[in-house]
Amino acid sequence: MTENPFEDGCAWIDGGYVPMAEARIPILDSGFTRSDLTHDVVSVWNGRFFRLEAHLDRFEKNFNRLRMTHRLSQQERREVLFECVRRSGIKNAYVQMIMTRGVPPKGVRDPRQFENRFYAFAIPYVWILNMEDQKIGTHIVICRDTVRIPTQAVDPTVKNFHWGDLVRGMFEAYDRGGALAVLTDSDGNITEGPGFNLFAYHKGVLRTPAAGVLEGITRMTVLELAEEMKIPTSCEMFGMDVLNEADEIFLSSTAGGVLPVTTKDGSPVKEGKPGKVTMQLRKRYWEAHDEDRWSTPVDYPGREQGA
Amino acid sequence: MTENPFEDGCAWIDGGYVPMAEARIPILDSGFTRSDLTHDVVSVWNGRFFRLEAHLDRFEKNFNRLRMTHRLSQQERREVLFECVRRSGIKNAYVQMIMTRGVPPKGVRDPRQFENRFYAFAIPYVWILNMEDQKIGTHIVICRDTVRIPTQAVDPTVKNFHWGDLVRGMFEAYDRGGALAVLTDSDGNITEGPGFNLFAYHKGVLRTPAAGVLEGITRMTVLELAEEMKIPTSCEMFGMDVLNEADEIFLSSTAGGVLPVTTKDGSPVKEGKPGKVTMQLRKRYWEAHDEDRWSTPVDYPGREQGA
Repeated sequence: MTENPFEDGCAWIDGGYVPMAEARIPILDSGFTRSDLTHDVVSVWNGRFFRLEAHLDRFEKNFNRLRMTHRLSQQERREVLFECVRRSGIKNAYVQMIMTRGVPPKGVRDPRQFENRFYAFAIPYVWILNMEDQKIGTHIVICRDTVRIPTQAVDPTVKNFHWGDLVRGMFEAYDRGGALAVLTDSDGNITEGPGFNLFAYHKGVLRTPAAGVLEGITRMTVLELAEEMKIPTSCEMFGMDVLNEADEIFLSSTAGGVLPVTTKDGSPVKEGKPGKVTMQLRKRYWEAHDEDRWSTPVDYPGREQGA
Repeated sequence: MTENPFEDGCAWIDGGYVPMAEARIPILDSGFTRSDLTHDVVSVWNGRFFRLEAHLDRFEKNFNRLRMTHRLSQQERREVLFECVRRSGIKNAYVQMIMTRGVPPKGVRDPRQFENRFYAFAIPYVWILNMEDQKIGTHIVICRDTVRIPTQAVDPTVKNFHWGDLVRGMFEAYDRGGALAVLTDSDGNITEGPGFNLFAYHKGVLRTPAAGVLEGITRMTVLELAEEMKIPTSCEMFGMDVLNEADEIFLSSTAGGVLPVTTKDGSPVKEGKPGKVTMQLRKRYWEAHDEDRWSTPVDYPGREQGA
């Protein structure tokens, strides 16, 4: 038995594969100094990518919207993600791809002149709320001191690392005894939280904010599964009133799936237990990870020898 | 003559000094993946730090506001900045200090549990507009497609790398034939641009936005110099009308000082030449870099041998 140097994860940096502990980016990369980038996160569950093509398509669309280009094709980026997972050997993985504006040439400030950079890595799956805690549900706080960065400033559909508002929200949530933060816009409409979308099952309709949020792939999956299950859905703007009256609330994220909310601002959501619709959707969400229409197996090395 | 490995700049990373080409941060640092950080930039001009204590104080105040702590004292951070400049030997330098939330421990999402990280580096001085071009003045565009991230989402007085709106603005400025972008808030008030504050000399008063902007040290210096020069000043909110009527417009930044604006949205500002008040302030700004009240000499190695 030799130890795998990639067992904590494998990153693709500057054209080569390195263990996570060595995965570093230039301090002058404007992806850091201007947070000028887009990224995407896809999961691998039981050795299978989930909705990989949807993530790859969104990623390419988004870096194009930022007017970035890169020498690797989508097929080559796809292969990099597979190789990160293969080398790590991780069966349940959090796989991130990042396109940054890149390092400014000496004395140049104009971002049109930077060479854009692509980074990727696979690490063990990240849980916003782990499987055990999902059976109990979590406690969200609707923030009063911080609003979500508006679309007119930074477009949330171009997945980004502008988390200043979300981190401020996290601290407010902790201060108020909660576990997770949800932000509103300046008109009081519910938006999203750090790394997740929100759903409310209200008057027989599964509602999720229509705008001012990331159009999450897990959000899309939930909407599609709900449709298959004949649950009415609606993408719309709504405020605290809908959350106050909701029969069920849950969050959706690549980092954990369908996450039941049982407490809001210190008060129970209905009976304070994960809701029936929520748990049905959660069950279908995880079942879908084995289905060929949405998942793609990783060809780990050694598998052919029965390893 | 031996070549100095630090001549392109020197960085302090993880407790050691490295040449800029080797200055890298972990890809998992939440300073990158959440842009969860604050930073500050101070200049060295003719071998002297300019208003170093003001920058160090603001930096410490800001990382405290983000609830960050670090084992280095302000005195030790100060010494790191000096050593970066000394090793580089650079006489006109752009010196940046950054405090990030740090790398999440494995499986942890709660930012309260991360060990905060301090980075610093000195590189050759960065010009938003170089000295020669300052004699002609620059062309600003007041953005219509993007608004500045509001204070209620991310506080601009805690200097940050949330530049998504500013970079979007830069592209709009280029598309409209300009060189630099200025953003408004959602009410149409003028705010700031990528890396600079704005001033308008209007009806005999030097006006600069009161809120929704970084409280720049160069902005503060300009206000103090104006007071010494008996020029009335006002920090207030104003919109396009003031810019349209202004006799002079200029920008202020550590990266270039006092930058005359001679064209706005394709039209000349008054006669389209750098203004008189602007150029007087610019002259005083650079003179002040030699004055003991505001500047501190760097003890470069070899100086005692007359090198």
